[in-house]
Amino acid sequence: MTIELINTGSELMLGRVLNTHQQWLCARFADLGRTVTRQVAVPDGSADIENAVREGLSRADLVVTTGGLGPTCDDITRERIAGMLGLVLHHDPAVEAQIRSYFVGRGRPVPERTKVEAMVPEGALVLPNRHGTAPGLAIRVDPNPFREGGRASWLVMLPGPPRELRPMFDTEVAPLVLREFPLEGGFACRTLKTTGIGESYMEELVSGPLRHLTDAGMDLGFCARVGEVDVRFVARGPAAAAVVAEAERITRGLAAQYIFGEQDDTLESVLVRELARRGQTLALAESCTGGHIANRITNVPGASAVLNAGFVTYANAAKVSVLGVPESVLRDHGAVSEPTARAMAEGARRVGAADWAISVTGIAGPSGGTSTKPVGTVHFAIAGPDGTEAFHQVNAFDRETFKYITAQQAMSRLLRRLAAVC
Amino acid sequence: MTIELINTGSELMLGRVLNTHQQWLCARFADLGRTVTRQVAVPDGSADIENAVREGLSRADLVVTTGGLGPTCDDITRERIAGMLGLVLHHDPAVEAQIRSYFVGRGRPVPERTKVEAMVPEGALVLPNRHGTAPGLAIRVDPNPFREGGRASWLVMLPGPPRELRPMFDTEVAPLVLREFPLEGGFACRTLKTTGIGESYMEELVSGPLRHLTDAGMDLGFCARVGEVDVRFVARGPAAAAVVAEAERITRGLAAQYIFGEQDDTLESVLVRELARRGQTLALAESCTGGHIANRITNVPGASAVLNAGFVTYANAAKVSVLGVPESVLRDHGAVSEPTARAMAEGARRVGAADWAISVTGIAGPSGGTSTKPVGTVHFAIAGPDGTEAFHQVNAFDRETFKYITAQQAMSRLLRRLAAVC
Repeated sequence: MTIELINTGSELMLGRVLNTHQQWLCARFADLGRTVTRQVAVPDGSADIENAVREGLSRADLVVTTGGLGPTCDDITRERIAGMLGLVLHHDPAVEAQIRSYFVGRGRPVPERTKVEAMVPEGALVLPNRHGTAPGLAIRVDPNPFREGGRASWLVMLPGPPRELRPMFDTEVAPLVLREFPLEGGFACRTLKTTGIGESYMEELVSGPLRHLTDAGMDLGFCARVGEVDVRFVARGPAAAAVVAEAERITRGLAAQYIFGEQDDTLESVLVRELARRGQTLALAESCTGGHIANRITNVPGASAVLNAGFVTYANAAKVSVLGVPESVLRDHGAVSEPTARAMAEGARRVGAADWAISVTGIAGPSGGTSTKPVGTVHFAIAGPDGTEAFHQVNAFDRETFKYITAQQAMSRLLRRLAAVC
Repeated sequence: MTIELINTGSELMLGRVLNTHQQWLCARFADLGRTVTRQVAVPDGSADIENAVREGLSRADLVVTTGGLGPTCDDITRERIAGMLGLVLHHDPAVEAQIRSYFVGRGRPVPERTKVEAMVPEGALVLPNRHGTAPGLAIRVDPNPFREGGRASWLVMLPGPPRELRPMFDTEVAPLVLREFPLEGGFACRTLKTTGIGESYMEELVSGPLRHLTDAGMDLGFCARVGEVDVRFVARGPAAAAVVAEAERITRGLAAQYIFGEQDDTLESVLVRELARRGQTLALAESCTGGHIANRITNVPGASAVLNAGFVTYANAAKVSVLGVPESVLRDHGAVSEPTARAMAEGARRVGAADWAISVTGIAGPSGGTSTKPVGTVHFAIAGPDGTEAFHQVNAFDRETFKYITAQQAMSRLLRRLAAVC
């Protein structure tokens, strides 16, 4: 099965936005056992979009476009593709009703221009948009005038905003792909999420013991993200599920201490789940991470049952007045020190009336470092029912990466501590 | 001038990495007054790369490839392109000396495989790599066998790692572009950042009054992000700067209340800048946004001079004990109410000893809504030297979008308040 992805948008070509669709959609197709064979980005101009779709249809079984379905004058994908394929657009009252209800439910007037979003090319499937207005569209191009022998292709048009595109792909496009392009033989895919070990070390650790499986055709992949490495097993054929299960068993035996979850787990989702399971609560005292940890934890539905309070105590005065850090500790050891981290964690646990507390205090940079405490220095403490532990790291990265990695280290340490006390 | 960008790499097609080259290179070309007309990503397979380069050369004045110049077995761009163009590769002793010195300077042995990086197609310009080993290559393809009439194109091959590619573009490729493709006439581009108005409403507001400019050839573009809409003007020709200035003046006159910045400004960067300019400080009391506002503000270098403290008071007990919200207010009006929002903001301002405080309390969902307070309900308050104001919104979105939009509304309201008092 050949798949081509066409991203439309002049803002892409001007470098104003990052093309996150490519990575997300390519990863989703990989999870379905399919590989995207080409990706193209073109501006919102009629000829560019038409040419790219025509070329895609001349080569691929499935062409997916993103963007250009909205209500403004530069949203022309729907009209141009219908015109190119000779399909008449008709007004779909059900789609219009859905668009109206989207605005009415938010107490807003329905803009006149959104009417174009209810136009549907004849024969197209409507892919409902549960998080926005413009629906997606799927067309079986058969016969396909651009492909050798008129061989059929599917053309799927998705809206540009990620929060609309992503659920639409999962609920509408993935089932269509599985139905229209069934995989021959078996397929299994599994991802283990790890933290605290680099990509090359992880590869050294597991690639030898997994060699008999990779030699027999299993794909072993590593994907390094900030502070995390995904280990991914993909197998095809009738034994696929057993092969992947064996790879997982071996890897868990070798790398248990680094594995925190599977598939789409995040450190924060696992932490919320573990604390909720125990009926325990958390407080946070963040200096250098500036609310980053609280923000990630509260992205997890159900976090309110677990997170009692978070304190972003950037200023020293706030460390004293809010968390009760003794002024003498700040004076004698400085804000970035183990005693301050300990006092912050214990203060957050007490003031937040929580079972557990995490504190972080460090120097995010780009300025503020000294010779003994360089930019990137972080002191952590974790206070719990069984006492307080402290540790430190030097995370010399740009500001946002610093915050992310520091949060990874703090959350994974608490997870390990929870595993140890249970 | 037409420019096509070809990114090679199987990891791109599997969704393992984000294609940051596209955004970076497109933005750099835009800064030079040029627009990339097409971007293509293909896997590390010989036929794919050759086909993509051939198609690019058939259309574009400049084709830029990224990746595939390194020493490993899947780095085939140099060989395949030389073969396709019928150019003999010769060993360049100067390049080899530079590669050797890279390793020797780091006290490492010179790997045997790096020798291929010293192979240069005949007639190619070598673009020195000051941050890695493989040099870039630039070839004037003249005559160009793939283009109508044999019209010449430039082909530039850049290494994949961003820390090698980026400085090489700035020191080698940008001067080549300016020299080989001088701009005829003028060029001007300007982006206004707005919030608090949807894309279609913005278009309704400004497209009529700007029609005389767009009819005369100015590009008017809208880019909707979560809670923001960019309005972009692009003009060419001798009057470009005046045209864009006129478009900006008209738009500012019509949409002043929605415009918070320009170019790469964010609400948080403008807020930090404005508070720093006034020598004033901020405290935050976040319930439903869970630290999201604090996290974004502390992403801005220099935020520590402005943000005194942030409080994530998810639990009612924390609202009482940390911020001093009266229990009677919570009992009589509930946690998601105007009186609670006011008490939170005033408490945060007092406890954080800040000039200004923002509070948000709402129902992020997916659960927790009632018939009178549906999911998405948010109450805000802003406490300042001149008193406290409150407002509310219904933001019925998924959890992360809810937090983002709620933060946009809170920060933009404070910005407007600052503008009013100053």
